[in-house]
Amino acid sequence: MDQYMNEQVFSYERLLSFAVAVFIRIGCPENDAMTAATALLSADLRGVDSHGIARLIGYVRLWEAMRANPKPHIRLIHETPSTAVVDGDGGLGLVVAPFAMEVAIRKAESVGTGWVSVRHSNHFGIAGYHALKAVAQGMIGIAMTNASALVAPTFSVERMLGTNPICVAIPAGDEPPFVADLATTTAANGKLEILQRKQAPAPEGWIQDKDGKVSTDPDELKVGGALLPLGGDREHGSHKGYALGAVVDIFSAILSGANYGPWVPPFPAFIPMPIGMPGKGIGHFFGAMRIDAFRPPDEFKYHMDNWIRRFRSARPAAGHEKVLIPGDPEREMEAERLNKGIPLLPVVVADLQNLATKLGLDFENF
Amino acid sequence: MDQYMNEQVFSYERLLSFAVAVFIRIGCPENDAMTAATALLSADLRGVDSHGIARLIGYVRLWEAMRANPKPHIRLIHETPSTAVVDGDGGLGLVVAPFAMEVAIRKAESVGTGWVSVRHSNHFGIAGYHALKAVAQGMIGIAMTNASALVAPTFSVERMLGTNPICVAIPAGDEPPFVADLATTTAANGKLEILQRKQAPAPEGWIQDKDGKVSTDPDELKVGGALLPLGGDREHGSHKGYALGAVVDIFSAILSGANYGPWVPPFPAFIPMPIGMPGKGIGHFFGAMRIDAFRPPDEFKYHMDNWIRRFRSARPAAGHEKVLIPGDPEREMEAERLNKGIPLLPVVVADLQNLATKLGLDFENF
Repeated sequence: MDQYMNEQVFSYERLLSFAVAVFIRIGCPENDAMTAATALLSADLRGVDSHGIARLIGYVRLWEAMRANPKPHIRLIHETPSTAVVDGDGGLGLVVAPFAMEVAIRKAESVGTGWVSVRHSNHFGIAGYHALKAVAQGMIGIAMTNASALVAPTFSVERMLGTNPICVAIPAGDEPPFVADLATTTAANGKLEILQRKQAPAPEGWIQDKDGKVSTDPDELKVGGALLPLGGDREHGSHKGYALGAVVDIFSAILSGANYGPWVPPFPAFIPMPIGMPGKGIGHFFGAMRIDAFRPPDEFKYHMDNWIRRFRSARPAAGHEKVLIPGDPEREMEAERLNKGIPLLPVVVADLQNLATKLGLDFENF
Repeated sequence: MDQYMNEQVFSYERLLSFAVAVFIRIGCPENDAMTAATALLSADLRGVDSHGIARLIGYVRLWEAMRANPKPHIRLIHETPSTAVVDGDGGLGLVVAPFAMEVAIRKAESVGTGWVSVRHSNHFGIAGYHALKAVAQGMIGIAMTNASALVAPTFSVERMLGTNPICVAIPAGDEPPFVADLATTTAANGKLEILQRKQAPAPEGWIQDKDGKVSTDPDELKVGGALLPLGGDREHGSHKGYALGAVVDIFSAILSGANYGPWVPPFPAFIPMPIGMPGKGIGHFFGAMRIDAFRPPDEFKYHMDNWIRRFRSARPAAGHEKVLIPGDPEREMEAERLNKGIPLLPVVVADLQNLATKLGLDFENF
């Protein structure tokens, strides 16, 4: 716990302006730097600490390793009235994904729905940020991405899939939006990283060792172990988590021409690129659906509010106060952190200070 | 095991023609009877015994209770170039769903993708059958449905969601299609029914008792217990299964105007209808995506085959021969049962004989 007691708290604005400055230093145009920083910081705001500013140094290392293009020529390479494929030209996913989501939204405006598969991109932060772009336009938003392989399919000991998250964000009326944002594994890798820092055991069902045996060692992935698909084992439905992660991989990469399965490029720049990559970069998939393409928005909103209220009032189990609606915890966290600031671990603060020094910035000046 | 040793085996053709005759007897037009019987029997062929001919008597009871309309006027009530809402007029889901999937496919032919939400329908059999209709046209198919509430959301003891399955079916080249077809619960209700018949305990993580405590009693649902969302408990990601089941409910019912959450009409006709239903019938959601709306089909097929072969050759865990591709078990079952016939439990055969007698049919003559 000691690491958590020493957290320093920073305002959202300060971290945002620092991230913007860093992205500009590595060569991003000013607009792109703001786009990337906003997407990145949305993870800190929503409480997904593993995917926020703590990863800024990782993005810079990708750039140093020439694995991220700060000035990409992002372009549409194919389209129909309701679909498109976007080539991210090796850009930051934090910049490529907003471009692609915007295309999906424009297509939905035109023909009811829009669906965009993306190749040659990089890690895009949290899926929820991108899906919520559609909600801001009154639409349903869908975002998913593949990622480098950490997950063993059911019956396997080989890491073949990333944690491949899916987000579905749905607007309501007076109630806040419904936001399901989930890795297709029992636990996201970020949760494992927290246990690694604490040197605390992982619950059974999160990971297996290199031989496929149950393990609770949070460092197991460093010695050939793997994350488990949602479900954990066959008896508890791990083949379903595996299938969902596979769908994300196929929609993100096989529809677009990105890398898939064990060939997805790793986020840590020190890990060698996979051999024999069959595509370009990593892949994403986005969808936007106009509500009025199905039903008058007033009716939809009335029933979404009714759905949310009915579920919120479902009888709680002993020891629990209430049933949560997907998106509740992240939204509450966002309100709190916009107000009180974002707490960072000392190790993250030190990383940011070192990063600033390396790039000729003064962290204290932001 | 004794019940399984007494199984009788019937040819697919015999059961199909019997089901057609039954649907005609309850007033379905001949074409609809064939459509319904084919959809129903696809469950038996694919090994989902709980959703096949064993349920024929359940559909008849819905008709007797005036809860299923044998001559529905199925119609499009709203559309855009890529979307539609279909009203099933209380018809059998086995008939309404193929109509709606056909609309999705036609829209995809026209603008790249098609998305159809359905209200006022009934249970549609297995999601996989409908999604595979798109694959037969060289497209990706998506099918989902809500169902009457058996599942408690995370932190709750109240049954609020059905087992709400999702199917995503994706064509390949030389390899057979990828078919992920999954209930958003740890275990489908059909698996629990098998344990009930055997009076065998359920694994922990499948069900909880009326107070939300872990239970292994397969009869727990009869005394206020609930199925658990995929993940089982919060620590193992049950909030993800809950969120996925919720997305299915919202896409199927709130987009269309069907009933949702605890108000979805039950399949067993002896269970009273929910009070204060906010919509019409049960809801489904279908999607079709043309491959060439994203990428030249030859490239897509090459990489789908490569994906499938790479995953099939992933290093297996000790005690397992190989990694399965979603859809493998069902496809192998279908080939076997088309060849060797469909085994039915004595209780199912007796049900069919009684049903035949009641409707003035001679089961032995089929």
